[in-house]
Amino acid sequence: MPTDNKRLQIWKKFKRNFLNSGSMECFDTHIHSEGKGITELKAMAEAGIKHVISCAYYPVVPSYSSTLIDMFRKLTSFEVERGKKAGLELIPAVGVHPRCICRGWEKALKWVEENAEVIGEIGLECASDVEVEVLSAHLGIAKKLDLPCIVHTPKNNKLKVTEKVLKIVDASGIGEELVVIDHATPKTVEEILKKGYYAGLTVQPGKISVEEVISIVEKHGFEKFVLNSDTGFNDFEALTVVETANALKEKFDEKDVKKVAIENGKKIFKK
Amino acid sequence: MPTDNKRLQIWKKFKRNFLNSGSMECFDTHIHSEGKGITELKAMAEAGIKHVISCAYYPVVPSYSSTLIDMFRKLTSFEVERGKKAGLELIPAVGVHPRCICRGWEKALKWVEENAEVIGEIGLECASDVEVEVLSAHLGIAKKLDLPCIVHTPKNNKLKVTEKVLKIVDASGIGEELVVIDHATPKTVEEILKKGYYAGLTVQPGKISVEEVISIVEKHGFEKFVLNSDTGFNDFEALTVVETANALKEKFDEKDVKKVAIENGKKIFKK
Repeated sequence: MPTDNKRLQIWKKFKRNFLNSGSMECFDTHIHSEGKGITELKAMAEAGIKHVISCAYYPVVPSYSSTLIDMFRKLTSFEVERGKKAGLELIPAVGVHPRCICRGWEKALKWVEENAEVIGEIGLECASDVEVEVLSAHLGIAKKLDLPCIVHTPKNNKLKVTEKVLKIVDASGIGEELVVIDHATPKTVEEILKKGYYAGLTVQPGKISVEEVISIVEKHGFEKFVLNSDTGFNDFEALTVVETANALKEKFDEKDVKKVAIENGKKIFKK
Repeated sequence: MPTDNKRLQIWKKFKRNFLNSGSMECFDTHIHSEGKGITELKAMAEAGIKHVISCAYYPVVPSYSSTLIDMFRKLTSFEVERGKKAGLELIPAVGVHPRCICRGWEKALKWVEENAEVIGEIGLECASDVEVEVLSAHLGIAKKLDLPCIVHTPKNNKLKVTEKVLKIVDASGIGEELVVIDHATPKTVEEILKKGYYAGLTVQPGKISVEEVISIVEKHGFEKFVLNSDTGFNDFEALTVVETANALKEKFDEKDVKKVAIENGKKIFKK
């Protein structure tokens, strides 16, 4: 059993995250709700996160497309209801993540074409030929149906793969206002903005910090960014959007902070 | 945003559940870890729950067997690791839940036969012909391979369907020591014990209460029961096994309480 001290630490951390969070309504534009319990989703809602995009992802590589399709069905029905119970507007994004490409992925794409309101999480991981093919196919659907897309860029080879992602998105001819290039870093932001896309700023250990967000918006303004946590199956860093919004409020006009914390997201995702 | 009072209430509830839980090590013999976030799993471990059986279940009816098989793969790899990170020994139980029977279920059964260490959650929901066929097929595998089984009984028609379940289990010829008839109630316990099986006592709103557990063990002793919460995709009633063990300790010998809280589970599931 944990010592009383250990328990107390955990309790204090929970209390800090839970009670001292800000009062601004936020939109976390990239989570994986399937990895979160309802208590955690409730804690997000209580902290001020009122809208989330829950992106499709399966944590083991699926063996066949029906796993993806059933996951999309779960995300667009069961997860939406679970979000509601927790006090969140949960907007499902469906698509084949580059780490989830499997036999029959074309069938999953067909489901996306028939049912998606937001496409995601798509993108490149290693930038293999099949990943490029799958990404391009999604972008084709998004262009045809005028659907917003959440496009993943990977941890490894960030610069090079982001460049490749941007080329593929450019080539698709999709409207710039429909595209969030996600997990942007101080090094990739400039290229993304030059092309006219939105940049997703994922505040999470191993991704970017609150301080990096501050310096990014100081340099590039508030118009072309959305905040997200990418919280999901792993540790509970689910309140980083609220924490970031609070930190931004200390330095910038609330009107500007609201753009990255909620308004840009509402505009892109048509909510 | 919630009022400070509302926040305080939630915080106090968390604190109460989290800090004032008992010191006895427990085995929650039936959860669905896939519906829980890692913070919640950690809270369970911190509260004293050291071992859990995480049962296979998919919250929308799958369209094809590969969804079940991929879910089994996730449960037996990714979820085991997630449990470890949270401080839990997570023992996966795989099988086709009566509410998850889909096209190709025989293929999922083959995977179970080749990989299972514990079979579950199986059983009957409406007691339809196909449910009976699927349950019998699982029991055949369990008998052949000497595997413990977690057998669900439903909320509706509890008595009648439990009787049918018991008939099917009897007919399979499986060893009594391998079978937990789960979600037992004061009304079904007697029949289950008469046949020599273990009864799973699921302490959860809508299932049974701590008080009912107390009166059941008062009448029938501690040898043939295991405790569980069935916690999963819904609300966070994840510490009911610890709460029940604490309540039992106030009335009974710790040695006896340990049987239902941990030891019977270890014996049945060979841990």
